[in-house]
Amino acid sequence: MTDNLSAKDKRSLFHAVSSIADTASSGPFVLSHGKGSTVTDEHGRDYIDMGAGLWCVNIGYGRDEVADAVAQATRQLSFQHLFGGAASAPAIELADRLLTLFRERANAPHMARVFFGSSGSDANDTAYKMVLHYHNLIGKPQKKKVISRHGAYHGLTYAAGSLTGIPAYHKAFDMPAHGVLHVDAPHYYRGAMAGESEADFAARMVAQLRDTIEREGPETIAAFWAEPVMGTGGVIPPPQGYFEGVQQLLAQHDILFVADEVITGFGRTGEWFGTGRYDLKPDIVNLAKGLTSAYQPLSATIVGDRIWDVLEGASAQHGAFMHGFTYSGHPVCCAAALAVLDIMESESIVDPVAAKGERLLASLKQRLKDHPFVGDIRGAGLMVAIEYLADPATKRDFAGMAGHKIVAAHVREEGVLSRALPWMPVTSLSPPLVIADAELDEAIERYAKGAERALPQLESAASA
Amino acid sequence: MTDNLSAKDKRSLFHAVSSIADTASSGPFVLSHGKGSTVTDEHGRDYIDMGAGLWCVNIGYGRDEVADAVAQATRQLSFQHLFGGAASAPAIELADRLLTLFRERANAPHMARVFFGSSGSDANDTAYKMVLHYHNLIGKPQKKKVISRHGAYHGLTYAAGSLTGIPAYHKAFDMPAHGVLHVDAPHYYRGAMAGESEADFAARMVAQLRDTIEREGPETIAAFWAEPVMGTGGVIPPPQGYFEGVQQLLAQHDILFVADEVITGFGRTGEWFGTGRYDLKPDIVNLAKGLTSAYQPLSATIVGDRIWDVLEGASAQHGAFMHGFTYSGHPVCCAAALAVLDIMESESIVDPVAAKGERLLASLKQRLKDHPFVGDIRGAGLMVAIEYLADPATKRDFAGMAGHKIVAAHVREEGVLSRALPWMPVTSLSPPLVIADAELDEAIERYAKGAERALPQLESAASA
Repeated sequence: MTDNLSAKDKRSLFHAVSSIADTASSGPFVLSHGKGSTVTDEHGRDYIDMGAGLWCVNIGYGRDEVADAVAQATRQLSFQHLFGGAASAPAIELADRLLTLFRERANAPHMARVFFGSSGSDANDTAYKMVLHYHNLIGKPQKKKVISRHGAYHGLTYAAGSLTGIPAYHKAFDMPAHGVLHVDAPHYYRGAMAGESEADFAARMVAQLRDTIEREGPETIAAFWAEPVMGTGGVIPPPQGYFEGVQQLLAQHDILFVADEVITGFGRTGEWFGTGRYDLKPDIVNLAKGLTSAYQPLSATIVGDRIWDVLEGASAQHGAFMHGFTYSGHPVCCAAALAVLDIMESESIVDPVAAKGERLLASLKQRLKDHPFVGDIRGAGLMVAIEYLADPATKRDFAGMAGHKIVAAHVREEGVLSRALPWMPVTSLSPPLVIADAELDEAIERYAKGAERALPQLESAASA
Repeated sequence: MTDNLSAKDKRSLFHAVSSIADTASSGPFVLSHGKGSTVTDEHGRDYIDMGAGLWCVNIGYGRDEVADAVAQATRQLSFQHLFGGAASAPAIELADRLLTLFRERANAPHMARVFFGSSGSDANDTAYKMVLHYHNLIGKPQKKKVISRHGAYHGLTYAAGSLTGIPAYHKAFDMPAHGVLHVDAPHYYRGAMAGESEADFAARMVAQLRDTIEREGPETIAAFWAEPVMGTGGVIPPPQGYFEGVQQLLAQHDILFVADEVITGFGRTGEWFGTGRYDLKPDIVNLAKGLTSAYQPLSATIVGDRIWDVLEGASAQHGAFMHGFTYSGHPVCCAAALAVLDIMESESIVDPVAAKGERLLASLKQRLKDHPFVGDIRGAGLMVAIEYLADPATKRDFAGMAGHKIVAAHVREEGVLSRALPWMPVTSLSPPLVIADAELDEAIERYAKGAERALPQLESAASA
């Protein structure tokens, strides 16, 4: 069976975001079971999943309540679309519950309606199209450029991938598309000048955005895109004062603000939403991952009243809103999200996240304080980065950014899944929010062991 | 509860592909249950779903085997991605089974690997990116334009929506993107010149494609995109000789062929795949809808060896394939597809489709032969169009293309769901493939009644 799966994989499966050559030579890494914060591979080996899949399995794996809800919804109405005014109870109930939840928990009473898709990528693609549509409707067809940030991750459809600001995702595919600009990531640890305070650094990042807007012409800039905490770019929480300055600038120039909460939503940063935690006033918010804890593919694009009022007001004359997907509001996916929200609320899953995050951060700092290649340890809630440098004193990178990948491989050998990120040399840790303190401590211990075992290889890579 | 759902919908849900104004005034059309070919609305009223959702519920609603498979997969491994060479058994098993099935059933032994996404839109977006990547790798970075067809429907992400060739989906959103061209749809009934034979019409369509390629320069054209039978554009089977001519032209100019089988796949046209039925040799095939009979969001992009060999060969030097989605190969969605394929194969669901389609077509032609506004009735398998004109003799359209929408509304009153399409004035019928003959006859009878009851309104619209 084992050889069989590996052979089938090699001859038939085109992996997402993988090296074809590596998978062909070493075979796939096949996971067979998941329960709580632990996944088990096909050989019966357990791993503490400190990535929560891809930052998404917030309530942990294998909850029977969600399996039951999915089966029940399938038996009742195995599919229903939202086209032409059609709907299903799960889609309606979830839209209403999610809107109420977001308004309350993110201190965002101005949010107006919920649009559904299946992935974070399609949510960002949808938001991009809404931004264009809005500006056509208000008679500003020249206001169409969007500004994102280097290091941003907003998905990988062609439009969403253009908003993404990581060259590794662009080079093969002629991205970014025309009209998508990127400003610097507010990464204080790597971007600050000698002696620059965090507040000064943030002000400089805001000034760069202002310069970009003025250079391009504010009348050409439609929207600014940002993750509250940059995720795939390297777990980069916003420096103090950054979003205040950014939002002032956007307001001044009538530029829409799209908050990508695909990773930060549903408790990841220690509050329900990054929007609330960082006092954001977005016009559009994208959610996915934690929305269903990845039990089902589902995304939501929440639209604020500034946009909704224009679309609603123009509707009779303009005609139908001609965007959406067959699986927008799939009843089974929405039923899964409702079951996940039941669990999150009845078990108060978000409440201990901030404390767990502090514990994780403090333990890592303590445990790795003598590791010669650890440059920085930072995070927000249960979203933590350990950044590796060949020489932390001078912030010199490993050749080919190899260091953090070496660590991640050793950590996996110790029975912990972390992620080696593609832009900054970071291994990220983002466990299920339900992880028990004892599991967290065990994972930290194993991680530290892996990072220590990596030392000979790191030393050799550092001098390469 | 009823008022409650409608009120919640109006205050919270942003419908896909719907009129905001209409939904606000008339409220949502809420479906509550589905079983076999019948769906039931929130007031307990039954409808024969002659749309199969959106051409997708091929095995019918509410099969317990799929609900059981989905629940079991959720309990075992509620999420697993395919990044970095990772995989799950359902994703591997499905890739291998699907590849074998497609090779055999579509007479396409040259297909090489299966890439997964969640929707037809993302599958087309993925294929678009693969086409760009391929031409970069083979050293033809200037060969990037793609040619699609007016009336085509390839989804609605920004890239997929640009491939779509229906202006109603473009106008609000600044689409199509630069570099996407559209040639005429091979719609013989509407496009033929007086006295032109089907073969001559097809040859003229091929000549138009040739002229477009030559005008743009073949060295700039990367790919041609086509649904084997155009769906949303109006159920347009290819005229005799069309794809033979097209494929000769593509081969001559080294232009890739992407077949969008999102609708035609899995039995819809009376054979397993349109690729086999129309003797196509595509380089990429996109599948969704029937892949899971819409029980779960899942799409597949099958890549032929011409592209795969280049990607595989370049992998070690180029680095990882940096495209994919968190939910690519979601184990629960793949488990659903495996259960749906079990049903399709063990119950030989495709076998009677051609005969059912003939029955549907013949009965409609007989029953509607005296309807003064029916211009054409055509189809392929269980994918049928009834096209309405204000004056079929002169092929004059209703003002505002209103006629077929009037019919669809009356048909729904009679307890049948059909679809009023957005480009040609067509109501489409595409029932679940499992529909019993008695249900089919009942649906035809109700449809005809609705079309008759629509007459006074149609007469008034025809003279408007």
